[in-house]
Amino acid sequence: MNFRLLIQYDGTDFAGWQVQSRGERTVQGELESALALVDGGAVTVHGAGRTDAGVHAEGQVASVALRREWETLKLRAAINGNTGRDLRVIEATRAPEDFHARFSAKGKTYRYRIFNEQFVSPFQVRYAHHESRALDVERMRDCARLFVGEHDWTAFSSAQAETENRVRRVTRLEVSDRFDEAGRGRVIEITASAEGFLRYMVRSIAGTLLAAGRGELGEEEIARAISTGDRDAVGPTAPARGLTLVEVRYNNSNE
Amino acid sequence: MNFRLLIQYDGTDFAGWQVQSRGERTVQGELESALALVDGGAVTVHGAGRTDAGVHAEGQVASVALRREWETLKLRAAINGNTGRDLRVIEATRAPEDFHARFSAKGKTYRYRIFNEQFVSPFQVRYAHHESRALDVERMRDCARLFVGEHDWTAFSSAQAETENRVRRVTRLEVSDRFDEAGRGRVIEITASAEGFLRYMVRSIAGTLLAAGRGELGEEEIARAISTGDRDAVGPTAPARGLTLVEVRYNNSNE
Repeated sequence: MNFRLLIQYDGTDFAGWQVQSRGERTVQGELESALALVDGGAVTVHGAGRTDAGVHAEGQVASVALRREWETLKLRAAINGNTGRDLRVIEATRAPEDFHARFSAKGKTYRYRIFNEQFVSPFQVRYAHHESRALDVERMRDCARLFVGEHDWTAFSSAQAETENRVRRVTRLEVSDRFDEAGRGRVIEITASAEGFLRYMVRSIAGTLLAAGRGELGEEEIARAISTGDRDAVGPTAPARGLTLVEVRYNNSNE
Repeated sequence: MNFRLLIQYDGTDFAGWQVQSRGERTVQGELESALALVDGGAVTVHGAGRTDAGVHAEGQVASVALRREWETLKLRAAINGNTGRDLRVIEATRAPEDFHARFSAKGKTYRYRIFNEQFVSPFQVRYAHHESRALDVERMRDCARLFVGEHDWTAFSSAQAETENRVRRVTRLEVSDRFDEAGRGRVIEITASAEGFLRYMVRSIAGTLLAAGRGELGEEEIARAISTGDRDAVGPTAPARGLTLVEVRYNNSNE
């Protein structure tokens, strides 16, 4: 029986989504251990986004085929009773037999959060990258527009796996800023949607927009990096802690 | 030279504000250790609110007399370089010699946060009390009005220290609710302001409003508890993790 799980995690204390050979704590590993306990045998959990170490999720989706005919509220409680409090199944639902969290996904949205003050708040330190230099948000917005559309993202992805098709369509790239009450400071958020992302792509775009906000890169250099694939004109990959997988989209029939 | 510190902390991993004889980790203790290192000798840090174990602060204020003539940005950096990331000085300023964070305070605001869903989000689990039964917010609001004004809070405070004057003026008690995007659920917040609070008073009021929201207590019982001081008609003290010290108010001359 196939199930779909809506999952949240604070990525701070996880070595990413994917099970590691080194036995580190991972989200997939912890879910599979919990399910093995309650479903009576080994299972494989498929995640929509294989988030890297330190990356958070507000709306990760996973699929898993189970032995038992679980009532969904009981399944959620059974999993949550056997994982750390920094990993929670928010919702469990029955899914069509052909539903696969990764292969059925039509799009994803990530958010990169920057806390832009000279100090950092304990309420932001786990979930935002800290930038102490005042960022020019208008300039970041102007540059963000360049990333929307179908492009080859060679300059904005991991240098490994050179043969892969690196063309992806980015449907949304927005920069917003607001005053965070609890943190007593300015939070800048970069929201990116695409049918799919390459590894490190959002963090690489975020690092480039950070450099733009500091005045180190302009629209011309960024447009050139997008068109030529030249990594030298791209900002450094921004740290993992600022990144959150916000949403995974599926066709309505799967929702 | 007297300084005023604006402080935030995630109270989860602290045994409260006040230095303990048992050597547990406390906010005051960690600040005093950091300052002893950088100021060259033992100091005493006075906090406006001596928050209990597990209680958070977005706007705690402390005062401390130091040996060195610190430049305030350097003082902030020196303290933050010697404490855990869950404790941050947001702002350090010079203060008049007679400024004392506790005795000079004119009022405080606390917030009690409730995550009201069947599940709990990892992004709420540290900062909110989890209540899975659907709460009647209108009923909580009606009952909240009873707490505003000058009353003897015997029924809503620790049973110890019987001789203390338990009269305090509550100037604000509001119940709000909103949908939390990150947590994907309903957050109910109780905001309480007073010139001063007794120990456990906000958590006792929160526990009583929780009982009201579940339909276990009504306006009549609560009004009677306030007027008679009878602890039996009061809900159980709500857990520490939901409570945050939001703001301490001083006369303008101290601000």
